[in-house]
Amino acid sequence: MTTIVVLSGGMDSAVLLAQMIHLGHTPLALSINYGQRHSRELRSAFDLAAHYKVEWRCVDLSGLRSLMTGSSQTDAAVPVPHGHYTADSMRTTIVPNRNMILLAVAGAWAIARKADAIAYAAHAGDHAIYPDCRPAFVEACSATLRLADDHPVTIARPFIDWTKAQICHRGAVLGVPFALTYSCYEGADAHCGQCGTCVERREAFTLAGVPDPTEYAR
Amino acid sequence: MTTIVVLSGGMDSAVLLAQMIHLGHTPLALSINYGQRHSRELRSAFDLAAHYKVEWRCVDLSGLRSLMTGSSQTDAAVPVPHGHYTADSMRTTIVPNRNMILLAVAGAWAIARKADAIAYAAHAGDHAIYPDCRPAFVEACSATLRLADDHPVTIARPFIDWTKAQICHRGAVLGVPFALTYSCYEGADAHCGQCGTCVERREAFTLAGVPDPTEYAR
Repeated sequence: MTTIVVLSGGMDSAVLLAQMIHLGHTPLALSINYGQRHSRELRSAFDLAAHYKVEWRCVDLSGLRSLMTGSSQTDAAVPVPHGHYTADSMRTTIVPNRNMILLAVAGAWAIARKADAIAYAAHAGDHAIYPDCRPAFVEACSATLRLADDHPVTIARPFIDWTKAQICHRGAVLGVPFALTYSCYEGADAHCGQCGTCVERREAFTLAGVPDPTEYAR
Repeated sequence: MTTIVVLSGGMDSAVLLAQMIHLGHTPLALSINYGQRHSRELRSAFDLAAHYKVEWRCVDLSGLRSLMTGSSQTDAAVPVPHGHYTADSMRTTIVPNRNMILLAVAGAWAIARKADAIAYAAHAGDHAIYPDCRPAFVEACSATLRLADDHPVTIARPFIDWTKAQICHRGAVLGVPFALTYSCYEGADAHCGQCGTCVERREAFTLAGVPDPTEYAR
């Protein structure tokens, strides 16, 4: 079974890649430069694909940035909020329609390569702020993809009801090289330790009882 | 009402733009370079947006081309088939998941700009070959978009049950400058006259009884 794994370079998609390999899938890893402030994550995606020796494509769609105004992640005029990942202040980190674009592009590659599935790492902690990580959204996307082409492609989202701590624990069991992953919304070389994803990342390691190899600036 | 009009530069989307203006919408025109062989159409999109004095964005997503193998429109190794637009041989012109990507990107802009709707020009003649022009696909895409963000965006597809001849007739009534539009899959400056879209274009003018301003190479 050939599966396109949407690989951001963060810890969730790293564990997803390991999980799919564990389940016997042949993964094709896909990363997308949509002009994100935290494009540093793409280097991590490269490192993870190299670590697991899987075919990897990084597609430059940075032209999208000009359309995606108002998000701290694609609009330099909007600062990255600090605080907890599920706090209401995190709404400015929403990238307009990002996941529909990612899944549509993954769908294109899946159709061209006659892959069976797409896997993406949305999890329960994403649901509070990000509508395009919720189960109903993924179901609708899956239905759209089934109608988009005669070649059938399904969407696997094995972590949709998991907490990030559960994902972290699973990753430790599978031996995921967490030090290679990158989560920070600020996009600097070191994790800032204060943005929503840094807070969530640190919390996940603590709750899972897994040693955190991350160097946080604060 | 602000509406993102997906403007390829072909005659259908040109009439769509005119129709939306006629209905009182404020259009934002969106064109996408997905690495198509017939990128000549983007010049027509520019000319049409200038003619109608509407805001226009052309987003460079040509990196998609590397994923879209096997289609005559994005893979230089696959020749453009000649014949009727609805013939089975036209299947090689399908660009993998193209319309889901276009609508997802239009959705991103719609969310960022708080537009009310997206309009796209799929029509009845497209249904035979292109799954991503059929009503069920558009409905599913619309449902996905409603779930993707708290800001609601609808998809208008006013021509979905129209023939291309009906669109052509409507365009003539609205005074669409058809000479500015471009349809050819080959992508040369002059229309080839032999590919599926050239055959369909010529036929539409004839059936609609509208003078065809196009210069065909053959």
